[in-house]
Amino acid sequence: MHKIRFLPHNKALDVEDGENLIRAAMDLGVHINASCGGAGVCGKCRVIIEEGKVDGGISEKLDEKDLARGYRQACLSQVKSDLTVRVPVDSAIDASVLERQTTSRRIAHIQGIKLEELKDKGLFFPPVEKKYLELPAPSAQDNLADVSRLVGFLKLSHDEHRLEVDLAVIRKIPAVLREGDFKITATLVRPVREGGGRARIVNVQPGDKTGRNFAVAMDVGTTTIYGQLIDLITGHTLAQYGDFNGQISYGEDVISRIVYAEKPGGLQRLHEVVMETINKVIHKIIARSKIDPDEISTITLAGNTTMTQLMLKVDPRNIRRSPYVPASTLYPPLNATSLGFDLGDQVTALVYPAVSSYVGGDIVAGVMGSGMYRAEELTLYMDIGTNAEIVIGNKDWLACAACSAGPAFEGGGIKLGMRAVKGAIEDFSIDPLTFEPMIITIGNVKPKGICGSGLITTVATLFEAGIIDNMGKYNRDLNTPRIRATDGIWEYVLAWAAETQIGKDVVLTEPDIDNLVRAKGAMYSGTLTLLEEVGLTINNIKRIILAGGFGSYVDLEKAMAIGLLPEVDPQRVVFIGNGSLMGAKMSSLTNRIRRDVVEVTKK
Amino acid sequence: MHKIRFLPHNKALDVEDGENLIRAAMDLGVHINASCGGAGVCGKCRVIIEEGKVDGGISEKLDEKDLARGYRQACLSQVKSDLTVRVPVDSAIDASVLERQTTSRRIAHIQGIKLEELKDKGLFFPPVEKKYLELPAPSAQDNLADVSRLVGFLKLSHDEHRLEVDLAVIRKIPAVLREGDFKITATLVRPVREGGGRARIVNVQPGDKTGRNFAVAMDVGTTTIYGQLIDLITGHTLAQYGDFNGQISYGEDVISRIVYAEKPGGLQRLHEVVMETINKVIHKIIARSKIDPDEISTITLAGNTTMTQLMLKVDPRNIRRSPYVPASTLYPPLNATSLGFDLGDQVTALVYPAVSSYVGGDIVAGVMGSGMYRAEELTLYMDIGTNAEIVIGNKDWLACAACSAGPAFEGGGIKLGMRAVKGAIEDFSIDPLTFEPMIITIGNVKPKGICGSGLITTVATLFEAGIIDNMGKYNRDLNTPRIRATDGIWEYVLAWAAETQIGKDVVLTEPDIDNLVRAKGAMYSGTLTLLEEVGLTINNIKRIILAGGFGSYVDLEKAMAIGLLPEVDPQRVVFIGNGSLMGAKMSSLTNRIRRDVVEVTKK
Repeated sequence: MHKIRFLPHNKALDVEDGENLIRAAMDLGVHINASCGGAGVCGKCRVIIEEGKVDGGISEKLDEKDLARGYRQACLSQVKSDLTVRVPVDSAIDASVLERQTTSRRIAHIQGIKLEELKDKGLFFPPVEKKYLELPAPSAQDNLADVSRLVGFLKLSHDEHRLEVDLAVIRKIPAVLREGDFKITATLVRPVREGGGRARIVNVQPGDKTGRNFAVAMDVGTTTIYGQLIDLITGHTLAQYGDFNGQISYGEDVISRIVYAEKPGGLQRLHEVVMETINKVIHKIIARSKIDPDEISTITLAGNTTMTQLMLKVDPRNIRRSPYVPASTLYPPLNATSLGFDLGDQVTALVYPAVSSYVGGDIVAGVMGSGMYRAEELTLYMDIGTNAEIVIGNKDWLACAACSAGPAFEGGGIKLGMRAVKGAIEDFSIDPLTFEPMIITIGNVKPKGICGSGLITTVATLFEAGIIDNMGKYNRDLNTPRIRATDGIWEYVLAWAAETQIGKDVVLTEPDIDNLVRAKGAMYSGTLTLLEEVGLTINNIKRIILAGGFGSYVDLEKAMAIGLLPEVDPQRVVFIGNGSLMGAKMSSLTNRIRRDVVEVTKK
Repeated sequence: MHKIRFLPHNKALDVEDGENLIRAAMDLGVHINASCGGAGVCGKCRVIIEEGKVDGGISEKLDEKDLARGYRQACLSQVKSDLTVRVPVDSAIDASVLERQTTSRRIAHIQGIKLEELKDKGLFFPPVEKKYLELPAPSAQDNLADVSRLVGFLKLSHDEHRLEVDLAVIRKIPAVLREGDFKITATLVRPVREGGGRARIVNVQPGDKTGRNFAVAMDVGTTTIYGQLIDLITGHTLAQYGDFNGQISYGEDVISRIVYAEKPGGLQRLHEVVMETINKVIHKIIARSKIDPDEISTITLAGNTTMTQLMLKVDPRNIRRSPYVPASTLYPPLNATSLGFDLGDQVTALVYPAVSSYVGGDIVAGVMGSGMYRAEELTLYMDIGTNAEIVIGNKDWLACAACSAGPAFEGGGIKLGMRAVKGAIEDFSIDPLTFEPMIITIGNVKPKGICGSGLITTVATLFEAGIIDNMGKYNRDLNTPRIRATDGIWEYVLAWAAETQIGKDVVLTEPDIDNLVRAKGAMYSGTLTLLEEVGLTINNIKRIILAGGFGSYVDLEKAMAIGLLPEVDPQRVVFIGNGSLMGAKMSSLTNRIRRDVVEVTKK
């Protein structure tokens, strides 16, 4: 770690070796003009290294004299020692301006799943276990059936009673026993409740394979399907892959998918198409993790109610008709092969239960995976996206609303909006006197547009600097070419055409701001409505769990500033990424989740 | 009923109205020469109706004078009143000869399954039940998922707890509920033990269908596959059909099937071929019973260990290799559709457990279906066929042997042997002085050959008449053209060429007798060996259960005479027909069998 001090601000922070200097400034709230996103081409982010050492920072924008005086381009500099860095601010900027700089950027703490933690918390009940057995070989005096030999030995030597044996195992066992010279590994799938049913023997493998045990976790989204390959011994994710749901060509949202499913052959087609995508994801994560597919024991799937019914070929027509009744909210464990998954016959498919037509298994998975359902204090869970879900509650009760936020958070409906990929402006700061921006893009390349988290930060920053008012309108009286009306629409120029990848100005228009306001308004209203239903106010919320595709880069204070999030201590905000996928992974690792989930859906 | 008295024998019996006169004579042990099998063409079976009235009995073999004197052909006469019938015997036959006539024919009492009897005995635990429900329609205030509505109502109003819902039901329920205006019938499959697991909802149908509930029972034999369609409300068999197992072209016995299964693709092929036959049988019995396939809830299958493994695509190679280990003796309940049965997705397939490689589910089914496992007294169960099985025991213990009897009982290895179909000689008597035969064929047509039960009766009769000795050799010194040597092989002519359908003499040769002796010897040795194992003798056997294709027509006293059956009171012998099929039917009707069967296989 190195300490960096910025002058004349006299603000410091610790960063890791090799950190990019302009990102360090942004995180600390130190503004440095920069309009090429960090690509090194605008040459505006000149700083003077007064003490210490950086790698890089040199470009044709700096001549030898500049270099000799210690000038470097901040966006090209990697921190290699403690540093004192002077930002050559305009003399007109006085101390009060410096104090008006925004606070340090606060992003949410990322919450993952750690197996050791689950064990410590008493939450670890492995749903799948492997047992290594050295069986006596059969003889004329002992010619029990292969399965009886296995079951008998598990009873006698491992105290395993009430076992059920899958047909897939009966089909494999004769060859496996003899290949392994009667030394084999048996895979047992435990009932949800201890002592509450039979354990199933789902696989047998020759030799000792107890060290290898895997599962697939999957988020079956309307737009995207993500899969993870989980190592059940270590709890690690070995591979992850996401792909667009092939159903997109049959409609972008669940309603249009349901409409298509009602046509002759439509349900069958949508079922086949989503299975194709799921199988593609399965193939990718198996190939990437380089495991033997025979070592996979379960696949856990979470999706909204419509996606779940389409995947299982259950007619979803009543989901879109009043009174909005799903076929089922619970599904039994299913054989993966017979459902059409390209997985071995030993694999059990577990499908996350839903609450109702519009509170699906995806949000239930998020509530389970994040541990919210075990929370003591009042918690707000927000899955931010086009279809945003909000859950409020704790271990005693839960209330959920689904909000149609629109696509603004994913860059949709924004003139130069884009997904959070390379070239998207993800961070923004402004010089309060000159109104010159400091922008950073994903990948430090010239900007192409703005992503959801960039949008939130930019709008919040412009609002805090008084450049937009609380109606979301630009101050028409500021003396800068960056604020202008084009064809009667007011906008702020984040980057001039020459500094972009797209050959035109990257702008943020008032209609863009309107879209963001509506999106955050939808979520805020959802939150307030839920709170009102249970007689609470926004001030009662003590903790926030953020989920969704872009949440990890949201500047929490900015998100609170625009009213997207209620104001709580940023320390009390965690980000879990794809909540649905996290829930699916969590269920793969411990039966505690499946034990609790039915009660949770009833809460 | 009518009383018939035969003169000069002065023997009488009661027969049903319409009984064939020659069959009545045969049953009573009255010999009448008859060599055309009852077809009415040889004209030898002339009798005089002295009192009473018959229908028919007239042919061109009788002229007007004969008719006026009361002559009729016995084989063409149906009894319509009490009768006195004179057999015009040769005057040389004196009283002592008449007294040497064989005793009345004693066939086994036929034991079937009656639902009321099961209820009376406390054995009736229906494995499948239907419940009619009138559910409240959903509303904005009550928009539970369809499945939750059903399950909730079953809990509240029918006290049904711990229910599991099949995916097939989830797929059907939205349409079925709305088609039936929320009045539906749910089909529940009960766990084997009351309170010992969850009941599964396997089907839903619109309206009240509680009066219609069906099952399929099937015997998957090496040679033949029989299916029955069972009405679970009445216990009746609505349709039955049997067909040759398509696997026959891949080998006649289980060993050659196993050899074929070991070739590349062989197991898959044999699996497909047996499924084709099974599905053909399923289609036939559904069509014949005119039921809706959606009303079938279970299929129960019994077969020997090899047939079961081939049907379930489980490699049988170790069955034919020392120490003869099957893959499994127990199978879990399976989904019929995913196994490849042409039955609805609601159907559960139940497979009979086996004891070992050569004591299969077919014999276990016979033991269960016949109720032998509940017997107080020592019982001998014999399934007579090419692969004959013998079980000895009672409610406390059971011992089983499989005997390779060879195909003699099914007409195989016998020069003019045939299956028990139309044209087969099934009954035989002989005039002890003239050595002329009395033969009756199945269907009363001219003979084509001799079936298993005919073979037993003929050999026993010839032995009792002193025509063959206890080595199975013909007496070479008798004055009759019917006993002769052809190409050095001695034989008895049952029917001359002109009186047959095949244009050549129907004969019984000494090698034929040898084959029968070996077959019955195998079974007798099996019985003695079993008894010796448990320290008992043949005299301890108090009761016999006969099973197999031809057993119903076996003359018990004849079978005891040749040593095929131990001598017990014929009243204590029952015939159950196809024991494997009976067991499958019994399991369809009551869970008591499935509850008991695992314990029985351990006995």
